[in-house]
Amino acid sequence: MNDILDHRLRHSWTPEAGAGAHLPPKALRWLTARIGSLGEQAPISPDSAVVVPDSRLGEPARAALEAVVGADEVLTGRGDRLGRSGGLSYLDLLRHRHHGELDVPDAVVLPADPEQVRQVLDVCVTHDVGVVPFGGGTSVVGGVNALRGGKSSVIALDLARLDRLVSVDPVSRLAVLQAGVRGPEAERLLAEHGLTLGHVPQSFERATIGGYAATRSAGQASSGYGRFDDMVAGVRLATPAGEWTLGVAPASAAGPDLRQLVLGSEGALGVITEVTLRVRPVPEAERFEGFVLDGWERGAAAMRALAQAGDLADVTRLSDVDESEVSLSLNAGWKTAALRRYLTVRGIAEPCLLVLGWHGSSERRISARRKETVRILGEHGAIAVKPLGETWRKGRFHGPRQRDALLDLGVCVETLETAAHWSGVHRLRDAVRTALTGALTAGGHEPVIMCHISHAYETGASLYFTVLAAREDGDPAGQWQRAKSAACAAISGAGTGHGPLGTISHHHAVGVDHADYLAEEIGELGVGVLAAAKQAVDPAGILNPGKLIRTARP
Amino acid sequence: MNDILDHRLRHSWTPEAGAGAHLPPKALRWLTARIGSLGEQAPISPDSAVVVPDSRLGEPARAALEAVVGADEVLTGRGDRLGRSGGLSYLDLLRHRHHGELDVPDAVVLPADPEQVRQVLDVCVTHDVGVVPFGGGTSVVGGVNALRGGKSSVIALDLARLDRLVSVDPVSRLAVLQAGVRGPEAERLLAEHGLTLGHVPQSFERATIGGYAATRSAGQASSGYGRFDDMVAGVRLATPAGEWTLGVAPASAAGPDLRQLVLGSEGALGVITEVTLRVRPVPEAERFEGFVLDGWERGAAAMRALAQAGDLADVTRLSDVDESEVSLSLNAGWKTAALRRYLTVRGIAEPCLLVLGWHGSSERRISARRKETVRILGEHGAIAVKPLGETWRKGRFHGPRQRDALLDLGVCVETLETAAHWSGVHRLRDAVRTALTGALTAGGHEPVIMCHISHAYETGASLYFTVLAAREDGDPAGQWQRAKSAACAAISGAGTGHGPLGTISHHHAVGVDHADYLAEEIGELGVGVLAAAKQAVDPAGILNPGKLIRTARP
Repeated sequence: MNDILDHRLRHSWTPEAGAGAHLPPKALRWLTARIGSLGEQAPISPDSAVVVPDSRLGEPARAALEAVVGADEVLTGRGDRLGRSGGLSYLDLLRHRHHGELDVPDAVVLPADPEQVRQVLDVCVTHDVGVVPFGGGTSVVGGVNALRGGKSSVIALDLARLDRLVSVDPVSRLAVLQAGVRGPEAERLLAEHGLTLGHVPQSFERATIGGYAATRSAGQASSGYGRFDDMVAGVRLATPAGEWTLGVAPASAAGPDLRQLVLGSEGALGVITEVTLRVRPVPEAERFEGFVLDGWERGAAAMRALAQAGDLADVTRLSDVDESEVSLSLNAGWKTAALRRYLTVRGIAEPCLLVLGWHGSSERRISARRKETVRILGEHGAIAVKPLGETWRKGRFHGPRQRDALLDLGVCVETLETAAHWSGVHRLRDAVRTALTGALTAGGHEPVIMCHISHAYETGASLYFTVLAAREDGDPAGQWQRAKSAACAAISGAGTGHGPLGTISHHHAVGVDHADYLAEEIGELGVGVLAAAKQAVDPAGILNPGKLIRTARP
Repeated sequence: MNDILDHRLRHSWTPEAGAGAHLPPKALRWLTARIGSLGEQAPISPDSAVVVPDSRLGEPARAALEAVVGADEVLTGRGDRLGRSGGLSYLDLLRHRHHGELDVPDAVVLPADPEQVRQVLDVCVTHDVGVVPFGGGTSVVGGVNALRGGKSSVIALDLARLDRLVSVDPVSRLAVLQAGVRGPEAERLLAEHGLTLGHVPQSFERATIGGYAATRSAGQASSGYGRFDDMVAGVRLATPAGEWTLGVAPASAAGPDLRQLVLGSEGALGVITEVTLRVRPVPEAERFEGFVLDGWERGAAAMRALAQAGDLADVTRLSDVDESEVSLSLNAGWKTAALRRYLTVRGIAEPCLLVLGWHGSSERRISARRKETVRILGEHGAIAVKPLGETWRKGRFHGPRQRDALLDLGVCVETLETAAHWSGVHRLRDAVRTALTGALTAGGHEPVIMCHISHAYETGASLYFTVLAAREDGDPAGQWQRAKSAACAAISGAGTGHGPLGTISHHHAVGVDHADYLAEEIGELGVGVLAAAKQAVDPAGILNPGKLIRTARP
């Protein structure tokens, strides 16, 4: 079996050097001053106390699955099944620490190729088995939770063996990658051809090509490389109704763009097995720089100006005052006090950090682009603090690890994200902050709510919130569920009659957690159309039960 | 009634100053030398000899429709119905000249607003009436032909009264336009706010916002402004199952992007009533320039280099040798002979014209962009012949008029288009040319087949063909149908087992003419998914019968 699949890898993300290893003492002091006493419960080693029910997979189903993929590739051991039980949401992490019920698949099945995926689906239809496609397991919305959805049993269909770069078309700058290829491996395979995908979400180290496609992922460099859905030229799926291949040209008017129906379908309309992707030459030059703007409104106005002028850097990320404050506090390597003094002298009362990163075929081209960007930033009073860009770049994938450390310290820590058109961005941010503050204020302490814009468009932007609060040890899951519900209600405008303030997800997808809010956004008609599409490709309803389109939970 | 609706306008496109008014004698001589003797039949005044069957609309249906829109807005006169009988394909033009059967709607209904559209659909469900949404009537694929599809009668739902700019959000750079607004009017309405859409297909003068959306239109400046589907932030539809509104944020991971299911749905999934569009400031500066490259392969390589470097001008259009030859011949204002001599001296054996057009917020920004573009063109041996750009710009909407003139002269003249990834572009062009040449060669004369790339992407490009052949007077419709079928078979790779060489349409849509080739491109599963979506929103099947998704013709 591929090492990558090893169950231990799943937990290599928890800090090895003891709780708090990633938090400097100064940061810890700052945190407790802000959110109050942390939860007192001692850290629980994940999965140590989880009771795993026996597999419900029937013997005939198991035999049929083994006939397709081989006996070694149908796993029912405790560790194998626990390793594909849910994703990486705060609630999932709590469940692995025996807060809340963990949905454990009855088996893990590892097909070798697209044809075996199709055959596995046939078996699952015949034997009434639900199928949860499983890539990197990084969903933060319950997208890979092993719900049965009324089926007799449910398997995690782990796509790790679909790990090939199938073909490269350097003339068209296209590459076909299999669904199970993880971010770093995709880049390594493409680099052999001098190419890159340029898709670097925070989940990059684990997330897969198939998962990116299924969830409409967006990466840190999406301003330059596009969202993942912008990169997809074609898809190949296995469905219970047969193989489905889409994408013959860069653009088409041959009816609706059904690729865009598959992207974001979260395994409910088929198992994505291969993706044809637009690739680019590995950049010859790269540059990261930091800037500081005075206050959120000015920062957002600068982002808008850059997006509307077509002058966004490939990475463009604006932190609000709270997130900037935390960045400065957490990054102990920085001479924070000196920087603060400098900013005060330069007239910056409320520092908002802006990180810009450029990739390019040459330093000359980067310089040409940078010039326009810096000119616009100057109009918005931005102050250059170049090294902040490099500091951010170095820590860009540390978020999940820092979160694990905080979790062990008794902190309720989670993220959520949304997006709106520019005219509604501030109202949306205020509404989410109000909802979260209302739900998480306790003992005189408000939560820390940080926000950044990491994806700006001509017409609007995403808002990404990180929330820190003292954990309510009696009911930590309920504490967050109430806060999340309040935020989702605010975003979706449920009950207001005015429609949503923003989308329920800009790049984390629907999964289980957002399914109740989907109709508010796409209409009951939209949900009906999705259900009709699902009926056409998956009449038995085996595909990822309970995700995207709400079905009753058994 | 709105003047725009007047039946006469429909025919204002035929040349008023007599047949051939737009063709200089030199061009005519060139043409007959190339394609042989022209058809001999004298020009027929459109609609003069068409027998219009009595309206089949039942009295109860008529009364119910009149109750919704008012008695003056349900038209059953000969001219009104003929004016909404089909679009502008060569076959449609022949049908209006009594070659082939014209599908005439039983009535023309003109709702005033989205709510009336919805009510009209209710009436049509109740009374078993098919509904053909009708905008500018510029479809060249049979998209607005009044097929009954087994219904008792069929109406043309003319959206001309949905002519408002509903709202403008200057901060988000969004505008809501109603479906019936035509290209020039959209620009006029937006210009009052200093904004532009920048969408200029050749059908610009007549085509509507709703039609652009329903067909995934692409315009001459799509390299800079994007395809129409790139501009759509939201849509509002009326369906028999109710109102449907989509689009709350610039990007979303809240499931599949259902806007992309509506775009290109050609009236079969609902009647688009309003579209929320990304708009831009009216450019302060504009520049058009011409270049000449030596041969098609070098020209296409230059286009690819520009597209992959991100250095396309907003308008970027490369003609092949034949189209360049015709351009030089038709544009008598040009000192063609001198230009040819100049090009020969500069080493250009096979001139291919490249037109570039830039829009920008300032001359400075245009110059900066132009510099990179010209640098890349230099690497591909391009010679600047600046005035050719301006010449093209002046004649950019003349195509349909020139076609009418050619038609009256006895020429079989039609266009078709496709797209492929770069590595397949030459093979696709060769296959289409071979198919058309085989079908249209007669009496020792081959057709003139011109080709251009007007839409280039990082991964591929569109190919737009214009075909001229001597008309076969005995069966002019059959002559073109055989040629078109041969071209479509070549594009879709039908029967080869290798899949399509290109898309069956890059920006003209499916309509009736391409419906047989859709399954080859999106799979039987794709067609099944579309049919399921249609069933969800239009269970009675009243919407645009026989288009997009093939249904039996009565």
